[in-house]
Amino acid sequence: MKKILEGKTKDIYEIDGHHLLMKFKDDVTGEDGVFNPGADQVGLKMEGISQLNLRLSKHFFEDLNEMGVCTHYCDADIEDLSMKVRKANLFGHGIEVICRFHACGSFIKRYGAYIEEGSKLPAYVEFTLKDDERNDPLITKDALIVLEILNKEDYEAIETLSRQISIYIKNECAKHNLELYDIKLEFARDIETNNLMLIDEISSGSMRVYQNGHVLDPFSLSKIILQD
Amino acid sequence: MKKILEGKTKDIYEIDGHHLLMKFKDDVTGEDGVFNPGADQVGLKMEGISQLNLRLSKHFFEDLNEMGVCTHYCDADIEDLSMKVRKANLFGHGIEVICRFHACGSFIKRYGAYIEEGSKLPAYVEFTLKDDERNDPLITKDALIVLEILNKEDYEAIETLSRQISIYIKNECAKHNLELYDIKLEFARDIETNNLMLIDEISSGSMRVYQNGHVLDPFSLSKIILQD
Repeated sequence: MKKILEGKTKDIYEIDGHHLLMKFKDDVTGEDGVFNPGADQVGLKMEGISQLNLRLSKHFFEDLNEMGVCTHYCDADIEDLSMKVRKANLFGHGIEVICRFHACGSFIKRYGAYIEEGSKLPAYVEFTLKDDERNDPLITKDALIVLEILNKEDYEAIETLSRQISIYIKNECAKHNLELYDIKLEFARDIETNNLMLIDEISSGSMRVYQNGHVLDPFSLSKIILQD
Repeated sequence: MKKILEGKTKDIYEIDGHHLLMKFKDDVTGEDGVFNPGADQVGLKMEGISQLNLRLSKHFFEDLNEMGVCTHYCDADIEDLSMKVRKANLFGHGIEVICRFHACGSFIKRYGAYIEEGSKLPAYVEFTLKDDERNDPLITKDALIVLEILNKEDYEAIETLSRQISIYIKNECAKHNLELYDIKLEFARDIETNNLMLIDEISSGSMRVYQNGHVLDPFSLSKIILQD
């Protein structure tokens, strides 16, 4: 198999014209050695986190596929630390959608004059561009349309789908008395069917989850959700 | 009169319960001694620019008032470098609206992966918060509503009004073969009537104007527009 991308937390291989293999790594995003799911750099290595992230992604993606949500997930090989997925055409060079149930991270950095850290938000959705060089800038609906990254219908479909998926994850967390603060999702179009689908991973690296008012570390989060 | 605010480019005095006096200064925004209407710091002094900015604001505001656009402008005293305006209640701690006809400044900093400097934009409107500490962050319609800075109706009224005013200014520039690239406007509610109105100034410090493909310095811009 040909390696087509060496990512920050995953390497990507081509299986065939319609499928990719994602190999999970033990690298996680963060700054100055501190884990931060909102960071766009790899900050540290956490031994064993690749397997937990893969198991968590498998858990969520299988549920979502069963619920009829279109995702890129085909299957996972836990021993091999790999996930087989459908090949996708990105919107532009890639977009990220953040759904926020509580104010934290970049939302507080931007709007801290108006809201306190941890305050509730009503499944508020915002879009950022995947662009390391420009620090993944926030982008408005109008700018996405003007730059022809999304049209109005795509924007609204992605916004609705993000909210649905995020509420499902929030409810999964709530079953274990955990509180989802925010989650980052990625979408693209299936290269074969052109369907809008959820891509990337859904794991400790994509979300902030709190237990009794404190953010959970990636290991504890994965272990609690996977315990059943 | 009581000075109630020492601003970056203007000082503000209270005339009475419903009126303020804005005293224009020769300071302009910029970075490292270079003029930049998009900057949020005072970068340099330009002798005489206060009078030109006041004359330009007077010119635009008088036109707008005549056109029936609600503004805070009452009158101007050119010798005194001052403008009498109606007192306003800000939205939150103040919002700025940018209308863009060409891509430049912070738009390129954020979205330079998708568009070349100078490319045309269709009167694209975006909002930022006035917050020096946080570098005047971009804010989406949804975030303005979630943070209760604007409601949906306010947002849409301000968006429409910004586009109308910006197109008027663009046409004023075009009369002199000048091209408006972008403009920054501020809005608030009249403290007495609660009317939505255009506030602050409309001058070389609020816009980027090009002549034959080159950005005009504040002096040339003011002198060309005021020549008739």
